Amino acid sequence: MTSTRQQTEPAPVPETALAGSPVDREDLRARVSAALDGFLERQDARLAGVAHEVGELVVALRELLAGGKRLRPAFAYWGWRAAGMPDDDRMITAAAALELFQACAIVHDDVMDRSDLRRGRPAAHRRFATLHRAEGWRGDADAFGTAAAILLGDLCLSWSDEMFFGSGLEPERLERAREIFDEMRTELMGGQYLDLVEQALGGGSVPRARRVIQYKSARYTVLRPLQLGAALAGASGELTDCYSAYGLPLGEAFQLRDDVLGVFGDPDETGKPAGDDLREGKRTVLVAVAAERGTRAQRTVLERHLGDPALDAGGVAALRKVIVATGAVGEVERMIDQLTGRALAALDRAPVEPHAGQVLRELATAATARRD
Amino acid sequence: MTSTRQQTEPAPVPETALAGSPVDREDLRARVSAALDGFLERQDARLAGVAHEVGELVVALRELLAGGKRLRPAFAYWGWRAAGMPDDDRMITAAAALELFQACAIVHDDVMDRSDLRRGRPAAHRRFATLHRAEGWRGDADAFGTAAAILLGDLCLSWSDEMFFGSGLEPERLERAREIFDEMRTELMGGQYLDLVEQALGGGSVPRARRVIQYKSARYTVLRPLQLGAALAGASGELTDCYSAYGLPLGEAFQLRDDVLGVFGDPDETGKPAGDDLREGKRTVLVAVAAERGTRAQRTVLERHLGDPALDAGGVAALRKVIVATGAVGEVERMIDQLTGRALAALDRAPVEPHAGQVLRELATAATARRD
Repeated sequence: MTSTRQQTEPAPVPETALAGSPVDREDLRARVSAALDGFLERQDARLAGVAHEVGELVVALRELLAGGKRLRPAFAYWGWRAAGMPDDDRMITAAAALELFQACAIVHDDVMDRSDLRRGRPAAHRRFATLHRAEGWRGDADAFGTAAAILLGDLCLSWSDEMFFGSGLEPERLERAREIFDEMRTELMGGQYLDLVEQALGGGSVPRARRVIQYKSARYTVLRPLQLGAALAGASGELTDCYSAYGLPLGEAFQLRDDVLGVFGDPDETGKPAGDDLREGKRTVLVAVAAERGTRAQRTVLERHLGDPALDAGGVAALRKVIVATGAVGEVERMIDQLTGRALAALDRAPVEPHAGQVLRELATAATARRD
Repeated sequence: MTSTRQQTEPAPVPETALAGSPVDREDLRARVSAALDGFLERQDARLAGVAHEVGELVVALRELLAGGKRLRPAFAYWGWRAAGMPDDDRMITAAAALELFQACAIVHDDVMDRSDLRRGRPAAHRRFATLHRAEGWRGDADAFGTAAAILLGDLCLSWSDEMFFGSGLEPERLERAREIFDEMRTELMGGQYLDLVEQALGGGSVPRARRVIQYKSARYTVLRPLQLGAALAGASGELTDCYSAYGLPLGEAFQLRDDVLGVFGDPDETGKPAGDDLREGKRTVLVAVAAERGTRAQRTVLERHLGDPALDAGGVAALRKVIVATGAVGEVERMIDQLTGRALAALDRAPVEPHAGQVLRELATAATARRD
């Protein structure tokens, strides 16, 4: 796949897009949000053609999207800008589509994990179950909530594609990005299935846990968005390779940070109850390291408490203690530092436009920094 | 939307596609199946890049697809041929993508309805739950099955798009079809949500039940596939209008037949247990007519038994008796006849290529005929 892109010459900059003042991270967030708002307004009108009740799906999605960090759109947009392309509203639209793709992953993930909270609010399936109860409707409110969330995720998946390929960018740019877009979707879903199997096996080795996070999270968070920006820009093979050298370790570091936060993070920041990942029994790299390094007694604590749906504060504390005492936290922090360092070093060598390169540096830090 | 397409001139026939002997319905089914096989082989290789365990998703999908009737691909393909276009393998590929789209709808629908069987085999979520038990894996087998089926449906949805837009047809043809493709996805999911709400409300009037089947089934079965074929062909506005006059009533007639089969059909043909739609409490047009025409006592029977998960043969028989005695079956059969008649009359007036017109006539009959 890479070889085809490497032969692609940088595409000429379209004249219509040459205008525009410097964009910073904050600007970008606001413009991505505005693009999403506009897109959802059009979808809302379309759904109203089916029936007004259906508009509830858009209401729920707007609530969910309001809490997003726009991280994936940022990597796509700055991947485009770092290739020397100018600011362009069409690129903002294409980048914003990744927020819808992530929304699908989130909504379906919360159904699969039976999570109650997301971004500090009820997960989509809980929200629809609450609607069902509030309306006094017939049947099982939880089943209604699950079904509505499955449909909402399906809409997000369809809409991500519609928004990306309907961004207005030139067809030849979009065509170059198609293979990466397809790859991204398939590897995410394949990675999520692999995650299910690993959990069902009771967790594997550290290398196995690292493989899972590559596919279920790391790639679609950093590498694929960057590659989409590069492909749309018609970037050189050299730059695309640099993006891989930056994006692969950074995506992993990001997920490792997320895993640490899932165990030790402040609920105000994670938007989830304390220790929620422990209650769900997520077989993260952190847990795999703890299991590998733990004494028999420590492993017994992990076995007993991990994935217990009724895990209380005492259980959370016991697990945290083991994870710290085995040195797993220290080890994972070292991994995060190393991976982030490798990403930044790759960026230093990359022939990127300086302002965009600076933003990519900031993004790497923001996505992986300790929160304490 | 239609107005843009009406202004489109018929596109020239590509020279590479002029060859080919007459195709019949049986040929087409085989070629659609071959296209799906080839596509899944490539996806299997791609998923193997994630991990070999993930191949199970493709195995499950192959099993599901084996039982499909290829009805939606047929309407797309014959919609293209009836516009005067030649046989073309790329059009077969684009048409086959609709089978993947339907697979998403089926797999997710079975999760939402908690159906056990599909096409005479365990539904995808049951199949994965059985795998979990057979492997002696940890955790809840049913939760694993549900999660795997959600991911499988997501893959099908992504792949339908990838297969359609990767069919190799000229970009300007594909671009003309994009809006219909997008419309089809959104209205199906909107229609399914509306269906959930209607069930939660305990069923509505006949017009409301008819609205649900338009969006959740009729359009994506006949109208949208035909319109996709027409848009890809660059068909005239006149022909596109004829397709609507044929496709809208035919899609509804098809779903009404499906509803009758869901209550009275032979399990060998429906691939579902006898009376399964009654057990699931589907608020079909058939049920809405029965409720509207029934006496108070008959309505009480409907209320008591419809949607009872433990409904036994006696309950099924009692419901069937009410549905027949109220005249609902006769009324729905009349609706099917009228709608099919309208579809065929529209086809008679349509400027279609004669062989393809004949096949569209046969498809109308096959999709709506009584099975007794």
